[in-house]
Formats: sequence, C-alpha cells, structure tokens
Amino acid sequence: MTAKVGVIMGSKSDWDTMRHCCDTLEKLGVEFETKVVSAHRTPDLLFSYSETADERGLEVIIAGAGGAAHLPGMCAAKTHLPVLGIPVQSSMLSGVDSLLSIVQMPAGIPTATLAIGKAGSINAALLAASILSNKYPDIKEALLAFRANQTQTVLDNPNPAE
Amino acid sequence: MTAKVGVIMGSKSDWDTMRHCCDTLEKLGVEFETKVVSAHRTPDLLFSYSETADERGLEVIIAGAGGAAHLPGMCAAKTHLPVLGIPVQSSMLSGVDSLLSIVQMPAGIPTATLAIGKAGSINAALLAASILSNKYPDIKEALLAFRANQTQTVLDNPNPAE
Amino acid sequence: MTAKVGVIMGSKSDWDTMRHCCDTLEKLGVEFETKVVSAHRTPDLLFSYSETADERGLEVIIAGAGGAAHLPGMCAAKTHLPVLGIPVQSSMLSGVDSLLSIVQMPAGIPTATLAIGKAGSINAALLAASILSNKYPDIKEALLAFRANQTQTVLDNPNPAE
Amino acid sequence: MTAKVGVIMGSKSDWDTMRHCCDTLEKLGVEFETKVVSAHRTPDLLFSYSETADERGLEVIIAGAGGAAHLPGMCAAKTHLPVLGIPVQSSMLSGVDSLLSIVQMPAGIPTATLAIGKAGSINAALLAASILSNKYPDIKEALLAFRANQTQTVLDNPNPAE
Amino acid sequence: MTAKVGVIMGSKSDWDTMRHCCDTLEKLGVEFETKVVSAHRTPDLLFSYSETADERGLEVIIAGAGGAAHLPGMCAAKTHLPVLGIPVQSSMLSGVDSLLSIVQMPAGIPTATLAIGKAGSINAALLAASILSNKYPDIKEALLAFRANQTQTVLDNPNPAE
Amino acid sequence: MTAKVGVIMGSKSDWDTMRHCCDTLEKLGVEFETKVVSAHRTPDLLFSYSETADERGLEVIIAGAGGAAHLPGMCAAKTHLPVLGIPVQSSMLSGVDSLLSIVQMPAGIPTATLAIGKAGSINAALLAASILSNKYPDIKEALLAFRANQTQTVLDNPNPAE
Amino acid sequence: MTAKVGVIMGSKSDWDTMRHCCDTLEKLGVEFETKVVSAHRTPDLLFSYSETADERGLEVIIAGAGGAAHLPGMCAAKTHLPVLGIPVQSSMLSGVDSLLSIVQMPAGIPTATLAIGKAGSINAALLAASILSNKYPDIKEALLAFRANQTQTVLDNPNPAE
Amino acid sequence: MTAKVGVIMGSKSDWDTMRHCCDTLEKLGVEFETKVVSAHRTPDLLFSYSETADERGLEVIIAGAGGAAHLPGMCAAKTHLPVLGIPVQSSMLSGVDSLLSIVQMPAGIPTATLAIGKAGSINAALLAASILSNKYPDIKEALLAFRANQTQTVLDNPNPAE
Repeated sequence: MTAKVGVIMGSKSDWDTMRHCCDTLEKLGVEFETKVVSAHRTPDLLFSYSETADERGLEVIIAGAGGAAHLPGMCAAKTHLPVLGIPVQSSMLSGVDSLLSIVQMPAGIPTATLAIGKAGSINAALLAASILSNKYPDIKEALLAFRANQTQTVLDNPNPAE
Repeated sequence: MTAKVGVIMGSKSDWDTMRHCCDTLEKLGVEFETKVVSAHRTPDLLFSYSETADERGLEVIIAGAGGAAHLPGMCAAKTHLPVLGIPVQSSMLSGVDSLLSIVQMPAGIPTATLAIGKAGSINAALLAASILSNKYPDIKEALLAFRANQTQTVLDNPNPAE
Repeated sequence: MTAKVGVIMGSKSDWDTMRHCCDTLEKLGVEFETKVVSAHRTPDLLFSYSETADERGLEVIIAGAGGAAHLPGMCAAKTHLPVLGIPVQSSMLSGVDSLLSIVQMPAGIPTATLAIGKAGSINAALLAASILSNKYPDIKEALLAFRANQTQTVLDNPNPAE
Repeated sequence: MTAKVGVIMGSKSDWDTMRHCCDTLEKLGVEFETKVVSAHRTPDLLFSYSETADERGLEVIIAGAGGAAHLPGMCAAKTHLPVLGIPVQSSMLSGVDSLLSIVQMPAGIPTATLAIGKAGSINAALLAASILSNKYPDIKEALLAFRANQTQTVLDNPNPAE
Repeated sequence: MTAKVGVIMGSKSDWDTMRHCCDTLEKLGVEFETKVVSAHRTPDLLFSYSETADERGLEVIIAGAGGAAHLPGMCAAKTHLPVLGIPVQSSMLSGVDSLLSIVQMPAGIPTATLAIGKAGSINAALLAASILSNKYPDIKEALLAFRANQTQTVLDNPNPAE
Repeated sequence: MTAKVGVIMGSKSDWDTMRHCCDTLEKLGVEFETKVVSAHRTPDLLFSYSETADERGLEVIIAGAGGAAHLPGMCAAKTHLPVLGIPVQSSMLSGVDSLLSIVQMPAGIPTATLAIGKAGSINAALLAASILSNKYPDIKEALLAFRANQTQTVLDNPNPAE
Repeated sequence: MTAKVGVIMGSKSDWDTMRHCCDTLEKLGVEFETKVVSAHRTPDLLFSYSETADERGLEVIIAGAGGAAHLPGMCAAKTHLPVLGIPVQSSMLSGVDSLLSIVQMPAGIPTATLAIGKAGSINAALLAASILSNKYPDIKEALLAFRANQTQTVLDNPNPAE
Repeated sequence: MTAKVGVIMGSKSDWDTMRHCCDTLEKLGVEFETKVVSAHRTPDLLFSYSETADERGLEVIIAGAGGAAHLPGMCAAKTHLPVLGIPVQSSMLSGVDSLLSIVQMPAGIPTATLAIGKAGSINAALLAASILSNKYPDIKEALLAFRANQTQTVLDNPNPAE
C-alpha cells in the first residue's frame, strides 16, 4: 500500500518525540513513511522530497523540528499539501523557539502547528487522520473509534486517587 | 451550494481579524459559512454547532479566538473534523495567551494552529483549501494558481526600494 | 453530609498536584467530592457536571488543568458558582500555558485563578474555605485557626539556619 | 445599606481600569465601597483597612494594582475574607509583572486572580457576585439574569460582519 | 557589636539561597543578623521589624523571597533604609516571578534588586558592603581586598581547560 | 558643593527617562552631576569615569541604559562604589532586555537594579538618598519628609473617582 | 565594481528596516546589491541566489526577515559564506519570534544574528565591514574612521540635557 | 603559527560550553588561542586583550558568556575585528538573559550572536571559518569538506528509528 502520510524530522534525535506520532498513525491504520530530512544540512533533499510528495501519493506531511525549526515551513513552501508541524522540545528554551519558528509563518504559506513535544506528536497523527477522514471512510471510522475509546477510558476511571 | 468550511469566532470584535480568512476563502472559491459562537457565553451553541458540523456537510472548521481562547479546542472536543485555530491578537499580551491556549492541546484532541492575527487568518483559509484539495480538484487548481501568483508577484518586483 | 466543594481535574496525572488541595480541605473540615472530568475527552460530562453542580448542593468548584487548560473556564461557562482554577505545571512550559489559559478569561465569565502547581492547589482549598466562611461559622473558625497556626509556626522558628 | 464588597486600588491612575468593576457591581445591585489604598505609600492604611474589613461587614475585597502589585496579597495576609486581585496593565510590561506578582502567592495565603485589565475588572465584579450568590438570593438572581442576557445577546447577533 | 545589616527571608526554604549572602558578609567582616520574616504569614512581624530597623542600628536590609515576592517591597514601604531584594528561584517559573515582583516597584518606594538566586545572594552582601564603605573605612578596605583578590584569581588562572 | 551622586547614561535619548531621576535628586537636595557616557561608543571614558569616581568624591553612581545595557555593570566592574542601574525602556522589547542585562550580574560584581523606565528613574534617586541618609542627616530628613508627604497625599485623596 | 555584500529581505515591507543597513554600507564605501527574496514564496530563487553567491563574487550575505524568519538560516544552508541575520520587528511579537527563528540554528549551519530592527540593520552593515576589513585595507580604514567619529560625537556632547 | 581566532570566556565554568567551539576549530584546521577573560572581574585585561587583538594577528574573536553577558559587547567596543558572541546557558533563565545581553547591541557596535549553548559554540567556530574562508583558501576547503560531510551523514542515515 502507498503511504498517505510522510513523517519527516530534522535529525535522529527527534525520533524520541516523533515515534509517538508513528505509533498513533499505526493504531489508526493510516499508511505512512518516515525519513530524516534536515532543512539545514540537506536542503536539496528537503526540496526534492516536498516537490514530489504530491505525485508520490502523499496527502499529508508531518514535520517535526526543534530550535530554529525551518523544516515544516520550508516544506510548505515547496508543496501545496497540508504540512503539520511538531515543535520538538529544545534543550535550552523548552521548545518556545521551535513553536514560534513553526507557527509564526507569514501570510501565503501556512503550517498547521501542534503542541510542543509528545502531545503534539500524537495529535499530529490524529489531525492527519482527521484530514484524511473526509475522503477515506475507514480512517474516519478508526478515528471515531479512537476518540470514543479515549472518552470511555476517562468515564470508566472517575476517581483520581485510585 | 453547501458550505464546506465553517468559520466561527468568539465575538464580533474578532471579525477584523477573521474577515481576511473569509476574503481568502472567497478568492479560492471555497464555500463557507460564518457565525459568532462564544465558548464562554454560548457554550451550548458551540456544542450543537460542532456536533452537527459533519452531518451538515462541513469538512473543515476554522475558529478564531483571543485571550483564554477555548473556542478551537472545545470545538475539536466535539467533532472529529479538522479544526483550524487562529489566535486573535489580545489587547494585553499581543496574542501570546491566545496562541498558547489554542496550540498547547493535550494528547487526544488536536487543533491545527496558525500564526497570530491577520497572517494566521489568511493562512487558515489556505490550509483549509490545502486540506480540501486532496478531494476536490477545482480547489487544488485554485490553490496552485494562488501560490503561483504570489510567487510571480515577488519575482516581478525584486527591488525592495521601489 | 453533602459536598460543598467539587474538585475536578483534567486527568489522573493531575492528582499529584490536586491531592494537596484535598488534603487542605480535609484539614479545614470542608466536605468535598473529587472526579476526573476532561474538557477535551469528556466534554459532555463536563457540561452535565457543571450544569447540575448548584442543584446538587455544590457551592464552589475547584478545577485543575494543564497546558491549554480549558476545564476551569468551560466549567464557569456552564455554572454561576465560583470556579477556582489551578494551573497544573505543564511538562514543557512550566505551567505558563496553563496559567494564561485559565486566567485570561474574557469579560463575562470569570475564573478565580491560583498560583501554578502545589502552592495554588493548597491555596484553592483556603480560598474555597474563605468563600464559604461568610456563610458557615464553623468553616470560618477552622480557617482562622489554620491561619493563626501558620503564623505561629513562623514566629516560633525565626532562625533560618536551624 | 452596608457595603458587602470593598474595592481598593493602589493609585488613582488605576481607576480607568477599576471603574469597570464598579459599573458591573452596580448593574448587579451589589453594594460596594471604593478607596485608594497604596501598599507601598500607605502600608498602615492597608493593614487597618484589611484587618477591620470583616467586622465592618465586608464579605469580599477586590484589589487592583499594577507592576510589583503587592496590594491584593498583603490585603489577603491581613484578612481571611476572599481577596480578588485585578492585574492592572503596566506601562512597560503589559501587566505580566502585575499578573505574576498577584497570582504566584505562596501556599497559605491565597488571592483569586482575574485577567489583566478591563476584562479582569469586569470579571472581578461577577466573581464577587458569584461568591455572594450562595448566601444572597437576590444577588444570585441578578447574576443569573446578567449571564442569560449576555448569552442572548450573542445568540441574537450571529452574523460577525453585520 | 551591633548588626549593621539585617538579613531576612520569607521562609526557611530560602536559606539555601540566603546563606551565600551571610557567608559573604562574614568574609567581609560586616556584622549582620538573620531572621525568618514572612510578608504573608507574619505581616505584623514584618511591619514591626522594618519600622524599628533604623532605631535598632541597622543601616541596610537584605530581603530574599520567591514567587509573588512581597517581602522586600513591603519592608521598603515601612523604612527609609536601603532595602536590597534577592529574587529566590521559584520552583515553577525559575525566579522570573520573584524578579518582577521585587524589581517593578512603583515610583516612590525603591528596592535595590539583585540577580536571581545564588549570584544575587552573594552580590547583595557585596552591595551592602559597598553602601557601608562610604562611612566605614574598614569595610571599604575589606571590600577592596575582596575585589582585588577575585581579580587576581582570574589573572592567575587564564587557561580555561586546566 | 561637590557632587555626591554621578548620573550617567548611554545616550542622549535616555535623558527623557533619566531626567526624572535628576528632578527627584533636586527635590531631595542631593548634589549630583550628569554626563553621557556610552559603554560601547566611549569605553575608555567609562573606565576613567568609574575609576576616578571615588577620589572625585562621588559616593553613589546611577547609570541608565537600554537594550544590551552594559553601562551599569561595567561601571561596577571599575569602582567599589554602589552602582544603581536603571533599565531604560527599549523600543523593541519594552525594556526586558535592558532589565536582564543589568540585573543578572554574576557573583562578584553587583548592580542595584531598579524598575524599568520612569518609575525606576525616580526610585534610583530615592535609593541614592536612602544610601546617603545613613551618613548625612540632612538627606535623611529630606527623604523622610518626601516619604511622609507622598503618604499624606494618598491619605488626603481616598476617592479614586474624583 | 562588483558587489561584495548581498542584502536580501523577505518582503518589500522589510525595506523600512533594511534601508538603514544599505545607508550604512554606503557610508562605509562597501559595494552591495539588494533584492527581495522570500524563503516561503520564492524558495527556488532563494536557493539559486545562495548557491551562486560565492561564484558571483559576494563575500557576505545580509538577510532580514520577520516572524518565522527562515530566510537567513536557509540561505546559510546553501552557501558557506557568512550569513548575517537581521530580525525584523514583527507586528505581533515585537520581533521575539524573528530573533529566535534566526539565532537558534542547530549545530552545523550558523547565522550571525544582530539586534532586532533598526539597530541590528545598521550593525549588520558594520559587521560586514568588519568581516571584509581583514582583507580590504580601505574598508578597514573606513570602518575605523566611522568608529572614531561616533566616539568623538559622544565625547563632544557630554551634557544629556542639552 | 599565529592564532587567527581568539576564544575568550568569562569564567572557567564556561569551558564546558566553549570546548565544543575549540574542538570544531581544530577539526577545521583554524589556529586559535584560548583565555579566561572576565568583563566584570578583569575589565582591564579585557580592554588590553581587545585593543591589541588586531596587532597580534587575530582576525576574529569568539567570546562566550552567561547571565548579564557583557564580554562580547565590551570586546567589540574596543576592537574593529568581528566579535562572535556565544550565549552560555545560565542556571536560572536558560540563557535568555545571556542571549538578550549579547544580541541587543545598540547601533554602532555589533556582535555576531550565535545560538545558546553547545550549538552556538560549534557554530561560532563554523562562522569564524566562514569569515576567514574569503581570504584563506585552505580554510574554505576545510569548511566545504566539513559541510559536505555533515550532509552526507544525514543522507546515509535516512531511517530515524534505526
């Protein structure tokens, strides 16, 4: 099966954050591919990856990066596909730099920014599923089941001290 | 024609920001509807709006709010559709509060956050078009034309001092 | 005896912060109930909980949440009772996001915000007692004793190096 | 009639913010008094005001201050009554200093902090009414009417562009 | 000998920071006294301590506090003596709240603010010595020797990798 | 009469802030001198000014600077006299950069930091008077009168709405 | 003569900041060229511009951008030449986003970051001259004269109130 | 061989950050010297070091400092050579104070600021090589090889989970 979602990240050290995204995509049954693509160290790879994403069948790109996080924004500059940005927690500024570098895009080229770190990584997968669910009924079904299940888990465990 | 995108905002004072989103959706030929829905003053309306969004044919919701901006996140809690959040510039904290209240969603319920203010408003429209373009060829075409045009405008005006 | 104070929190992981609130309520002899209620994962539960709080005899609600902390504000949107918000320390931004998401409510729907984390959790209990003390003389007495005792403890231990 | 709410502020320049609180208390029919009390320039007045508040019949104190805003916290140190703090927007730091100086109280002495500026000022009045509504049915009724009215106003004006 | 410097702090937990101040005062041969004085839990003690400081022979007061740090400012409100404020690192916000609560005093009542934490604690002692050195030649001599020694230590160890 | 206080600033554009300091020194009858001394554009002047301050009879130095504000700290590196730093509001970051550049001095060389802008400028004068008052009875008297007067002004005008 | 410095910026609206850079380069007699190059709207132009900069004779590139400012970093990814980044003041966050997006580059690809706004723009020109002065004696001479002149201007105008 | 780059730092504790700079200079074959030079504890040494840097053959100075980091800016005030500033992570504010103290230089005296901590330390070495590469072909060659190598390393390891 062809990957519908491309998950890229600026360095291997981002995997600790990004694997939560991949785990969630798997739970939802969404096909995806992963690759290390560095905006700063492999700019040409970033451009060719982004430029060919649509024709290779990708429908959503998820990009995680930290610090001066240029990966999501530059990817979005080279493809019309929705690009979801995950601000990876930076060692110095807790991901505030990552967040601002990803979310404060100028008018014309959007990125869809998620929360900093693990929560954002899981949510990027859910947002990708949400985007795809308008077109793919099985993904919609999987997403609705995932959401119903997490609601039920809270309802079944109302006692915080247990 | 049925609206594919619902554009909601917490108060009429957000219109000054949100109209840029609507203008851009119009340029792209994307059908949309607009409504004032306040998470805090009309919580029941927010719930019924979100809950019925899918069955009414909406495929994307764009929500703008400022300060303790709960509109996008609570909307996302009540629908599996992609919810795009625009942090409206707040009078006191320049939208930092709006941004953090929208983007820092916990794992399980995502919002797709855009830049603070006008740029985010325009980009929410472009992101909505991007999401829809996987399914609707005419929106894809309009989006590609919009992007090509903005590129050409820069290329045609290389002199900053002119 | 009926609970006068409802203590809710967005997830079980908030208990580590919120138990200080419950411990303090117990010390003050204020009846309370606790429950996990998630704004994002169980929005309907949050609405029914808040809507029925008054008729069930609650006079104060204490809500703890972290990140894009919508629990206190959305609870306040559904009840006229005083809602006290505790910003739980978030893993990434030290609770700044929690604080701003709780405190920066728009005009019309207030939350009473306490300090981030454990101090705020203890103080929410004291503020609840303070609110109730206008009506319940025994709570007033317990609160005055608690305050006198903490003053005396400082006075009895003036040497910082001991 | 005796004032139930004392509204104090650090300087006359805070009146521009604090008058919104007084206007709202008036709309709700809550009796109040106002006074300039400066923590730094009139510390003895602050202490006598706070110490005698309970015996003079006050049930809630609302204190507005900016910058290194010590008024709410020091007032709370001298009375067991609920003290509501309004961070006044400071000329340099937009009220971030005011907010942190008011909200970050240590365990033992709480303040109930509202939003920075005008929104917080209006909401302090609403929170005071909420606190008093548990004891005074007419204030509860006025508060519920106020809330119903603001909900209806949004519902009656759903078009943002009008 | 009478203490010339009063070193106060809001709680025993501040001692870990404040002991560096006392150690440095000792090295400089400046007589001092220490006491736990809490602005919030022992406001009356704070007022009597500050009010009588001058007549008891104190010439400088050093006050350390964290979070909504009101100790230095309220002390300064009750004495014309120079009050030096040390922002103790808070557990949540790294001392930013402490710093702003101490430094952003309104016109009329100054505090002399030092750096957050240990560096500020040491420097408060040096600043106190500096203030006293205009009047006491032996303190001036000790201060000059301390400064010359720390300069020489750097000059004697120019190799960073050793 | 010889100046006891030297008031320096990084550029003429700081005068708008610093004149409030000079006005207050005048009101208190404290002799002072003023000079533009730029840490970055006239480093040698800064060194000679600081190095000779003590022998020229200065007992306190007040230094105002904005942005990467190195003036107070470098002055303190070259004199054992107390150096009071005023963070001038910067055009971009509201004086946060000025504040941190002045207050976060490493252990060994202190600066006494005041509030950002006009309030800090007035307070630097009051702090200088406070420092000098231990040695000069007439300055102490003037300072006490100034403080008594500002207290009385608040007491005489208790109505905020007048 | 060939341009030694390339001055690029993300949009025409940056010219108001960037013209100060060009004015200063002119004063110093450094040959330069200017061009609007948008990282997001014209990514291919950015790549070709950067890739060919060295062979076209450029020795320094100055890039100004605001918000999620990717221009300097992506330029640096495509050329080994020194890239100087000027954070343009953004309308919402005063240039904090621009600053962090430019300065927080990951190890491997540096940008030389200047101050936010006009000061940074002037200083980028001075830094470029400083870099070139090691190779070009006339630029060194012009730079030394510029610096001597600005020192003399301060020395000639010591009175801040004049 | 003569050192072309001078690497200075405010204290030995900065070595843990600064050694990454020296390691990288060594890899690139750039001759350098290192020295502890404290702006605050050894201001005269800083001035003589900076003043004689050019005549001693240095072409670039790299200065690392934390907190109120005055070393790079004051060095730049005393030499026309390019000064590269590395904000060392401070114990309290994560290097935000270091960053602002270094980058926000006023117009007239620039510093070239790198990222906070280790990344900035490595990048200062790369930027120095970049500056020198315009004049020294062997450094250009070494820099191009270093960059090609880091690109190839990413390309050879595309799988993040390996």
